[in-house]
Amino acid sequence: MSTRMRGGFTLPGEAGYEALTLSLAEKWGADVIRDSDGTRLSDEIVRAGYGIYSTICIIRQHNAFAEAHPDSQQQTFLSSDPVMAEGSTLILDPMAGFFREQFEPNTSPAALRYWQVWDRTAGTELSRDCWTLREDGRVQLTGCTPWHRYTVSFLAWRIWEEINMYNHTTNHWTSEHLRQLDPRHPEACAYLCGWLEDWCRANPDTTVVRFTSLFYNFVWIFGEDLRRRTRYCDWASYDFTVSPAALQAFEQQTGQALTAEDFIRQGHLQPTHRPPTPAKRAWMDFIQAFVAERAKALVEIVHRYGKKAYVFYDDSWVGLEPNGPRFREIGFDGLIKCIFSGFECRLCANAQVPTHEIRLHPYLFPVGLGGLPTFSEGGHPERDARAYWVSARRALVRKPVDRIGLGGYLHLTEGYPAFVDAIADIADEFRRIKALHEAGEPETLPLTAAVLTTWGELRAWTCSGHFHETYMHPLIHVLEALSGLPVRVKFLTFAEAADGGLSGVDAVISAGRAGDAWSGGEAWADTRLVDALTRFVWEGGTLLGIGEPSALPGGDTFFRMAHVLGVDEDNGVYVCHSPWSWETQPDGTIPLEAGMLGANPAIRLTDGEGRVLAEAAGAPQAVVHAFGKGRGIYLSDFQWKPGRALALLRLLNCGRGELPGWVSMDPRVETAWYPASGTLVALNNADEPVTLTLCPDGKPVQLALAPLETKILQPNA
Amino acid sequence: MSTRMRGGFTLPGEAGYEALTLSLAEKWGADVIRDSDGTRLSDEIVRAGYGIYSTICIIRQHNAFAEAHPDSQQQTFLSSDPVMAEGSTLILDPMAGFFREQFEPNTSPAALRYWQVWDRTAGTELSRDCWTLREDGRVQLTGCTPWHRYTVSFLAWRIWEEINMYNHTTNHWTSEHLRQLDPRHPEACAYLCGWLEDWCRANPDTTVVRFTSLFYNFVWIFGEDLRRRTRYCDWASYDFTVSPAALQAFEQQTGQALTAEDFIRQGHLQPTHRPPTPAKRAWMDFIQAFVAERAKALVEIVHRYGKKAYVFYDDSWVGLEPNGPRFREIGFDGLIKCIFSGFECRLCANAQVPTHEIRLHPYLFPVGLGGLPTFSEGGHPERDARAYWVSARRALVRKPVDRIGLGGYLHLTEGYPAFVDAIADIADEFRRIKALHEAGEPETLPLTAAVLTTWGELRAWTCSGHFHETYMHPLIHVLEALSGLPVRVKFLTFAEAADGGLSGVDAVISAGRAGDAWSGGEAWADTRLVDALTRFVWEGGTLLGIGEPSALPGGDTFFRMAHVLGVDEDNGVYVCHSPWSWETQPDGTIPLEAGMLGANPAIRLTDGEGRVLAEAAGAPQAVVHAFGKGRGIYLSDFQWKPGRALALLRLLNCGRGELPGWVSMDPRVETAWYPASGTLVALNNADEPVTLTLCPDGKPVQLALAPLETKILQPNA
Repeated sequence: MSTRMRGGFTLPGEAGYEALTLSLAEKWGADVIRDSDGTRLSDEIVRAGYGIYSTICIIRQHNAFAEAHPDSQQQTFLSSDPVMAEGSTLILDPMAGFFREQFEPNTSPAALRYWQVWDRTAGTELSRDCWTLREDGRVQLTGCTPWHRYTVSFLAWRIWEEINMYNHTTNHWTSEHLRQLDPRHPEACAYLCGWLEDWCRANPDTTVVRFTSLFYNFVWIFGEDLRRRTRYCDWASYDFTVSPAALQAFEQQTGQALTAEDFIRQGHLQPTHRPPTPAKRAWMDFIQAFVAERAKALVEIVHRYGKKAYVFYDDSWVGLEPNGPRFREIGFDGLIKCIFSGFECRLCANAQVPTHEIRLHPYLFPVGLGGLPTFSEGGHPERDARAYWVSARRALVRKPVDRIGLGGYLHLTEGYPAFVDAIADIADEFRRIKALHEAGEPETLPLTAAVLTTWGELRAWTCSGHFHETYMHPLIHVLEALSGLPVRVKFLTFAEAADGGLSGVDAVISAGRAGDAWSGGEAWADTRLVDALTRFVWEGGTLLGIGEPSALPGGDTFFRMAHVLGVDEDNGVYVCHSPWSWETQPDGTIPLEAGMLGANPAIRLTDGEGRVLAEAAGAPQAVVHAFGKGRGIYLSDFQWKPGRALALLRLLNCGRGELPGWVSMDPRVETAWYPASGTLVALNNADEPVTLTLCPDGKPVQLALAPLETKILQPNA
Repeated sequence: MSTRMRGGFTLPGEAGYEALTLSLAEKWGADVIRDSDGTRLSDEIVRAGYGIYSTICIIRQHNAFAEAHPDSQQQTFLSSDPVMAEGSTLILDPMAGFFREQFEPNTSPAALRYWQVWDRTAGTELSRDCWTLREDGRVQLTGCTPWHRYTVSFLAWRIWEEINMYNHTTNHWTSEHLRQLDPRHPEACAYLCGWLEDWCRANPDTTVVRFTSLFYNFVWIFGEDLRRRTRYCDWASYDFTVSPAALQAFEQQTGQALTAEDFIRQGHLQPTHRPPTPAKRAWMDFIQAFVAERAKALVEIVHRYGKKAYVFYDDSWVGLEPNGPRFREIGFDGLIKCIFSGFECRLCANAQVPTHEIRLHPYLFPVGLGGLPTFSEGGHPERDARAYWVSARRALVRKPVDRIGLGGYLHLTEGYPAFVDAIADIADEFRRIKALHEAGEPETLPLTAAVLTTWGELRAWTCSGHFHETYMHPLIHVLEALSGLPVRVKFLTFAEAADGGLSGVDAVISAGRAGDAWSGGEAWADTRLVDALTRFVWEGGTLLGIGEPSALPGGDTFFRMAHVLGVDEDNGVYVCHSPWSWETQPDGTIPLEAGMLGANPAIRLTDGEGRVLAEAAGAPQAVVHAFGKGRGIYLSDFQWKPGRALALLRLLNCGRGELPGWVSMDPRVETAWYPASGTLVALNNADEPVTLTLCPDGKPVQLALAPLETKILQPNA
């Protein structure tokens, strides 16, 4: 069996540790060396014959320009907390409660045009005649209704780049606060292009410019009070893209004049996890086009200097949208995604770009993201690395990426030889898996699952952010399970599903909480969607609903697909309606572990026909409900853990016959079969030895797997 | 101290057990003997010098008349379960799933006018041209939208009186199914009046006609399938009052033509626990007027024969509304309420009627309502009686009733001497408490609490039904606690609160789940309500919100009073908004027992100012929030148990100074002080001895109470 034992590996180098850098590059089979935030590469490293990635954050580290051109800085809409009027007048400090080191009100005439005062009790805007901005920065209101609560929506300059601000406030950095430029500003844009030219000229050894990342940070609003330091954080929202210039350009382009309230929405803003307004969707499109156009110009500069341009998908990524329609236009040569989980590997692999690279964890840093030790006392970086790899490899077995790598301070690996060995093993396994794909695709079941969300393909393989940031959404658990399953996966919007998108689909997955972007909320008011899904199941499809699928108040059932799912949730209307009684009948082939499902006491059968597979809190929690030639399947929740993928596969495959012989029936082990090379891959996801028998090609094969082992074999070779 | 040791007690007599009847009448101090369902009184009993109650159920036991006049029977609207159309036609059996021994479709032309077919998927009525009722009773639809679900709403005769049906299906009765007449039918009405005249004439020894109860049963819809025998049950809804004649009379009187959908509402009907539509409220008024008018005619007959007319508040009570404006007009001489709990004593005491009587539990029957043994092997009727008395006495100490009594088969008490002794004790305690009130009212704190609900005074002291039927509503727990507290209690509708009703109120209580009749639902869209309550608290009042008070989607906060309560509930909109952190600071004077509050993980502080008294599930569960001169207080739930009343009293009294010296600070003991007679009552609600010191009149008094003891003393006598 041929494997290439070098290449596809990016090593973080470190000046002052040249010998270590070059010896680990050798041991791990690196072909590229990179710098990291806080490290630099010496000439000795740069000229050692490796490819060189250089990290730049294009919009920050230009404080001198920002000082000279304060109107080139980035902005956002903010809304003050509501303040009650005791009489007909009120004085409000818009900035009360916000972190004054992050924000500064924009009181320019162009910005003031967008300020608004709202009566939040009545839900009405206060007439502009009734308020004035005072010299001291406060807003004076007249004509108030006593006992009503008022807010000021205003534009604010963001005077501290958020990632830098985070590092200062969390890691006690004391250096100068970095500012960030808005490429919407023509002078700033020209300046940034010139700066990049200079940079390329000054760094002839760099082979790849690694953009971290582009222009606009995800939304992160700090508060003054340490009891609520983070007021709001959304990894995928567009609030930080706003400015009077952008709003005016949008209006010219679309004819829509947006107001502060389009962004503020009663102070709720527009979190990614909630369905967006049409105005927000239009705004996102508009920003994506702008980001693509400006990024393309930068990539062209990089290319002119004979370098490649990769983008690291994090921090100032907003508008980039690697799964969006414009990503390809930018011309990036590579996408680098830092990953903890399998779904992130699939996200990276899914982007249309020549090179897909994943940056593994742990980061070479004394502590991890959660504050626990990694390369410091009490840390076990080798265990962490293997645990993350267990999540990643099952996804990579289904769909490959081109490269892996690490980041951080390389010298920290000294004293952790087990970690150094673990990475060497992982790098080899990665290269073997990659080679398998090059010999021919792994076999996939004849089963296409469509994940139905508000965002569809735009946000394929993500709920935004990492698993530990989105664990409260059942969909991320489903995506993690799906990332290693031998099924085809599509992402559809509700509108696409209503409009013929279900053609060719075998199973639809809808997982979310009532009203969220994953469950769909108002999308279910469209009876065409209900009709299309009803017909889809009646004619043989499977609808797997998790959590509060299709939930929308106002119908005769709370779940609009209750008739298909065989269950509904009591949101109060059934207070006098008795539920159907049932007997739980588990299905021995579907391993529904304790803790995998939820315990929602409000779930009830819609008719006497559903088969209850599991119950909790006195209510059904897993139900299979025959409907026409197909079936609805309901799970009150799906909590991911390694070993739970088989249950999901079994449910998706319900009514579709037996699984092929190469599929492991032991929930602890997952398998892939590469028919072109006759190769079987078996992954033991459990921390214990497992033996099992598979039948990949008609002939039984006995396997004995060590804890967490990856076994790659050609049973008939 | 003077107590009358006889009187105020109604004994269930039993023919064949004359000696037992008369000896227990003597032992328990009875002045009245009654018959019960299933027992009769002999001449020896009837002529022993006691008052005699005779029970009649006016609308049933007239099967011969019902057979001869089938159109005089009672009716209801029903809606079939939805059936999906695969194509443009569909045939539906309206009765599918309903209990065919209870219902029979009314296919008369007058009734058919009210039938409707609905497309429940689209939420639209199918045109009358598109459906026909076939000979076989099924409904044929054309013009259907494929994949949509359709229902038939229809009028049905109720051919089996529901209480009789319940006894047959539950207790295996085999006698003839009893039918019930609708007094709306002129011939039936005349027949019933004549029948009552005859009855009065035939029963000269009866001193009190005990109506059980009037005309219309609470709603109880049975299903054919034993896995859902009870489809729907609502102790306080008016669905069973409907008929074409009533609908036409309503239209003539109000100008509103109601349709089936006004009652069916997508199949949800209109449970008491949900806010009613304006049409339902108008219909209830209309039925109350009709019931009052017809009942008055019956009472006049009874009076003409020199008897009194009492009404037992249960079964066919709908339209009676003892707390409603028309109850007094009927002219009843007494109201009899069967009680398990304190709130039911207050409900009874609250009605405007000369005589208030409570029927104690246990009922003299082998098994209790829940099916557990009482007067049969394993039963402990004396324990049950004392436990119910512990609930009742604390309410009676606050507000007296005139009489107590029992019901059932007296001979069952043979072999239960401890029960006989317990009732003798209870009867004596009752008479002593009643005598105390006669000497002067107990002292009440200067604190008026207003309970805010959709129903207000109409449904004062109840959520409908008994505690064990409504335990899922936090309000019933609050009412049970309130029933024994030394505070004045009012019941206000949301409209009354918006309209000046808060004048004179010190604390407002709102307890319910989002959207229900107790929390208020749409009532909170009226900003006048929000304004009035905001002002009320700002100027010094207390708002105690429990569960999901003032919850209504669409505002900037989910709880419309969040700014006062200091908390809001995350219904999804805060998914990216970080909560305020807090430290729990219990208040030693407020005994918030474990299990008293809920564990709602979605509760969060609205600002940094609330004091968190208790937490669970990582979220605040009890918060006191200063607001102006007053305060909002939030509890995520309030689960009643004896011993938890003091916590509620302390919360209601927050910011109002010290409690007087006669109030017990031991949560196990409750006290009342009757200043006119200088009498202190101390109730030990715990099953253990308690000693405590009180200061009723400026001087300390030491008390030692046996388990569950009632102590009545005059400390300064």
